[in-house]
Amino acid sequence: MAKRNLYLNNTPVDEAKALYQKALGELLSPKAEWIPVTESLHRITKEAVYAKYCSPLYNAAAMDGIAVEAEKTKGASERKPLTLYPGTDFTVVDTGDPIHAPCDAVIMAEDLLEQEDGSVQITDAAASWQHVRPIGEDIVAGEMLMPGYHEIRPIDIGVLLSGGITEIEVLKKPSVAIFPTGTEIIEPGQEPKDGDIIESNSRVFEALVTEHGGVPHRFPPIADEYETLKEKVAEAVEKYDMVIVNAGSSAGTEDFTVHVLRELGEVLVHGVAIKPGKPVILAIVNGKPVIGLPGYPVSAYINFENFVIPVLQKLAGRTETVGTTVRAVISKRLVSSLKHKEYVRVKVGEVGDKLVASPLARGAGAAMSLVRADGFCVIPQNSEGVEAGDTVDVELYRSLEEIGSTAVAIGSHDLILDVMADLLPCMYPGNYLSSTHVGSMGGLMALKRGEAHLAPTHLLDEETGEYNIAILKKLFAGEKMALVKGVERIQGIIVKKGNPLGIHEIEDLRGLNYVNRQRGAGTRVLFDYKLKEAGISPEEIHGYDREAATHMAVAAAVSGGDADAGMGIQSAARAMGLDFIEIGREEYDFAIPVRFLDFPPVQHFLAVLKSREFAERVEKLGGYGLARTGEILYL
Amino acid sequence: MAKRNLYLNNTPVDEAKALYQKALGELLSPKAEWIPVTESLHRITKEAVYAKYCSPLYNAAAMDGIAVEAEKTKGASERKPLTLYPGTDFTVVDTGDPIHAPCDAVIMAEDLLEQEDGSVQITDAAASWQHVRPIGEDIVAGEMLMPGYHEIRPIDIGVLLSGGITEIEVLKKPSVAIFPTGTEIIEPGQEPKDGDIIESNSRVFEALVTEHGGVPHRFPPIADEYETLKEKVAEAVEKYDMVIVNAGSSAGTEDFTVHVLRELGEVLVHGVAIKPGKPVILAIVNGKPVIGLPGYPVSAYINFENFVIPVLQKLAGRTETVGTTVRAVISKRLVSSLKHKEYVRVKVGEVGDKLVASPLARGAGAAMSLVRADGFCVIPQNSEGVEAGDTVDVELYRSLEEIGSTAVAIGSHDLILDVMADLLPCMYPGNYLSSTHVGSMGGLMALKRGEAHLAPTHLLDEETGEYNIAILKKLFAGEKMALVKGVERIQGIIVKKGNPLGIHEIEDLRGLNYVNRQRGAGTRVLFDYKLKEAGISPEEIHGYDREAATHMAVAAAVSGGDADAGMGIQSAARAMGLDFIEIGREEYDFAIPVRFLDFPPVQHFLAVLKSREFAERVEKLGGYGLARTGEILYL
Repeated sequence: MAKRNLYLNNTPVDEAKALYQKALGELLSPKAEWIPVTESLHRITKEAVYAKYCSPLYNAAAMDGIAVEAEKTKGASERKPLTLYPGTDFTVVDTGDPIHAPCDAVIMAEDLLEQEDGSVQITDAAASWQHVRPIGEDIVAGEMLMPGYHEIRPIDIGVLLSGGITEIEVLKKPSVAIFPTGTEIIEPGQEPKDGDIIESNSRVFEALVTEHGGVPHRFPPIADEYETLKEKVAEAVEKYDMVIVNAGSSAGTEDFTVHVLRELGEVLVHGVAIKPGKPVILAIVNGKPVIGLPGYPVSAYINFENFVIPVLQKLAGRTETVGTTVRAVISKRLVSSLKHKEYVRVKVGEVGDKLVASPLARGAGAAMSLVRADGFCVIPQNSEGVEAGDTVDVELYRSLEEIGSTAVAIGSHDLILDVMADLLPCMYPGNYLSSTHVGSMGGLMALKRGEAHLAPTHLLDEETGEYNIAILKKLFAGEKMALVKGVERIQGIIVKKGNPLGIHEIEDLRGLNYVNRQRGAGTRVLFDYKLKEAGISPEEIHGYDREAATHMAVAAAVSGGDADAGMGIQSAARAMGLDFIEIGREEYDFAIPVRFLDFPPVQHFLAVLKSREFAERVEKLGGYGLARTGEILYL
Repeated sequence: MAKRNLYLNNTPVDEAKALYQKALGELLSPKAEWIPVTESLHRITKEAVYAKYCSPLYNAAAMDGIAVEAEKTKGASERKPLTLYPGTDFTVVDTGDPIHAPCDAVIMAEDLLEQEDGSVQITDAAASWQHVRPIGEDIVAGEMLMPGYHEIRPIDIGVLLSGGITEIEVLKKPSVAIFPTGTEIIEPGQEPKDGDIIESNSRVFEALVTEHGGVPHRFPPIADEYETLKEKVAEAVEKYDMVIVNAGSSAGTEDFTVHVLRELGEVLVHGVAIKPGKPVILAIVNGKPVIGLPGYPVSAYINFENFVIPVLQKLAGRTETVGTTVRAVISKRLVSSLKHKEYVRVKVGEVGDKLVASPLARGAGAAMSLVRADGFCVIPQNSEGVEAGDTVDVELYRSLEEIGSTAVAIGSHDLILDVMADLLPCMYPGNYLSSTHVGSMGGLMALKRGEAHLAPTHLLDEETGEYNIAILKKLFAGEKMALVKGVERIQGIIVKKGNPLGIHEIEDLRGLNYVNRQRGAGTRVLFDYKLKEAGISPEEIHGYDREAATHMAVAAAVSGGDADAGMGIQSAARAMGLDFIEIGREEYDFAIPVRFLDFPPVQHFLAVLKSREFAERVEKLGGYGLARTGEILYL
């Protein structure tokens, strides 16, 4: 009788998987390639992608109507309508049209009384910047559009193109050689004779490889001959990222696969405790994973799922996600019109034992809000909206698993949060950072309501001159809090390149067009402090009421030309190629309830904060000090 | 001032959707095309596909070992080992090798004591058909492999090829023309000037069309000119299945789309009550759906989801499905080995308020069980299995919605169940029939345990000579039952083509190779009744203990040559081209608890049973009477 390999091992499935994954280790790192964005659907980004352009590229009409100077409409009322003349007083604009200086507001078509001579009457004054989408409202040049290791969805393609990106570096699809073997198998379409088996497993594998992001290369069946099999496998491990041999993985007289693989490389497992499906071979040849699968279709399929797919996913840089609907607590009041069914984009995080949905920007033009969103929350027609703390249904784009391993940050914005969001999943795969920007005080309130794990904050206590500690002690009297030191930030006045207006201190801002940050932002607190110090009242600052939500939006407004100056951080000025006058240094830290310090994504967040990679990226941005980064104060 | 269309409607979303779908009606019927099976991943079958070949194609070794005549191994024991000689007494076989007559059993390699002269000793007699996979165990020629409107998965490709199918008729992917419009838009990659908008919506649409099974054809941007737009749309509705125009759907000075579509065809909706996203146009031109979407990216995206995707899915013949894990009651005892983690394929149904999982064939070769399965149930290593009624986790392949609209039939097998499973989703889209074959008595027991909606049954009461009524009255004493009359079936002896052994009545079966049905099958009850009538004892029938699970498996055994005769229905003999000797007529009916008669999939099942389509298909099969089909008796 011919030789048999009677002795298969009986390794438990999870043990076999872990053993193989460990042995493969770094060998499974994906490769990368550049492709056009228009062909990038479902591909995985290699690293973070940053916008080249703002969107909108200019101040744009948000409504159909007329563009006017708000200043010139003062005094219009029902009793005393104001007549405006085309050319001198207004320009007709459609939604999306640019608004040029000196125009700074749009009056909706519905609010106009058209006169026969072409003039229009208005019965209400226009407020500065009403119905205008400011430059960079959706996307600011230099802003991160998406992090590394992100699967590109249809909406992402739109945002990339809007941000001026046309080519993108993505992970290469792994190539998988598939070898059907066996003297008895025939190709589909041939007339079967006695003892023939129609070969179909390799076609199932082709389809599964395609479904999981690989490129299959199926070879014609090879007979059960030791030398032929050896030669083919040796060739394939040179050329392909992974090899599958089917079958010959058992212990029959013609089961050569395990011997061939032992001669060419290392066999780590032969036989696992699974039914059906025992005869599996897990090997490494020439640094490539080579897997022998059994011939029975069901055994082959189950083992493909157990052993091939995890390897393929690592090679392709993929984690699987599924859409689903969940109940979540809404973190902000949402007022809705009775007239519409409204789709609100939300970020979702699991904080303690609740899912928290934080609404994102609601403008129809805000494509980036679709990219940042974890899902939609639908507010039905005939509803007046929801209160903060209400429970809502959220249709998720991301898997619950992914959401459960996300650190939720709500608070002050800084560019280093983008860097953290990019580094976290790269350094600790499967961990994510979600960050929402509502200013320092807004973040601390969210933390207090249990809707975030951490709050980035930079609030100066005017009495002690210290940052953050006083307010934390005051707000979180009953709770153990950690204050994790972040970065020292250089704050100052952002002005045009070359500083044409010769601005050097706060006093110089009088009479200029200023762009402010929103109430509650640490930068605004600092600005108010500096104004008070200099004895200037807010009324003296033209534009004090014009609010931008982030440092980058301030920089974009200055860069676009409709503001002369704004206060912000040095890195934002540098990112947009603007000049910067230092006004002070402040401490940008992270407030974290002690009970969340053990939560793995938070732990990893802290590890990234202290990493060499983070320090290098922050130094490139410029304008930061890292002397105390990562230090923890318990309050 | 230029003309504006100030007046958009404010139609509620669901009303707009319903109105449009109703107007489109039959216009959305998918077209079909023939393609190679190897390229059919994720395509949708046009109609049911039937196997051309059996799988396995012959009686095959299920283990590595030796093929023997079971008869010749009688008497072997530990104390009195039997020596077998190669050539004369046995042939060495590997798993999958054919077993030729007179061999009818395989002894596993592990059970052999090899001798130096090449002979082997055995210490146990072999039972007939042990470790042999009978011809057609997995797939029987003529059996339905998958129904119409089924999305082809990787495993389906394997089963189609094994069943001898290499080309398949699938629904054509709908082609979608996409027109970006607007004077202000530029292509990505061009340097933007003031007032330019980088066109990206159309690229998002391309990707979404691809994701939902269509083929996008994106055109270069066209300027806001009435005549150009009209010409392009008029051309496109000739060539493509659907047209999307973006944007110009609002009411600005350059929003021509609605006027163009009114001139070319019919505009059903202009403006819906949705935020963001109000300006939507739903039109029909030249019998094709034409949709105008707003320009803001978020509005465009949300309206694409609401209005384009439903149309696209109808054109493509798709319903969306998602995988998930559920808890279900297992309907059968499952014994498992402590040594393995076991994957058991199950069918899942929602019966009353519980999900019921019915295990399918467990052999590793049973690829069809993967196709029939609704999911997997995993029995962990170190578990001895589960008892009937235990709750298990099931990983679903199908959506819960699909499962919730499935009529669950457990009981006796007949080919008309395949016909019903095929017709039901075609005639009542979204409704399915799941049928599991355990014989008449097994089905009634499942019904009693609340695990099925209906049980196909044909049990003769020997005292009254009536079918089904007596047993139902006896088993379901406390419950209101309906007996729905199915078909009159011609039962008889299936023999080889030309009836070479001259079989004419039950008496002629003495001494021949018979293949029987499993205990509890109505056909077996009838056979036992006929044997008793003829005064023949089961011992006189060689092969009385050899059990096949379906009529088709009996026919396959006769056709393959290792049985001379078996009892079964005429349609099975005809499907395999065999001869048939009528023995009697019986009534094949459906037992249904009255409380399930209102369940929509059961209602639709009954409607299909009484349909012209069903009658035509059954007549083609032959061997059935339809005189009382659909009649309901309340017991």
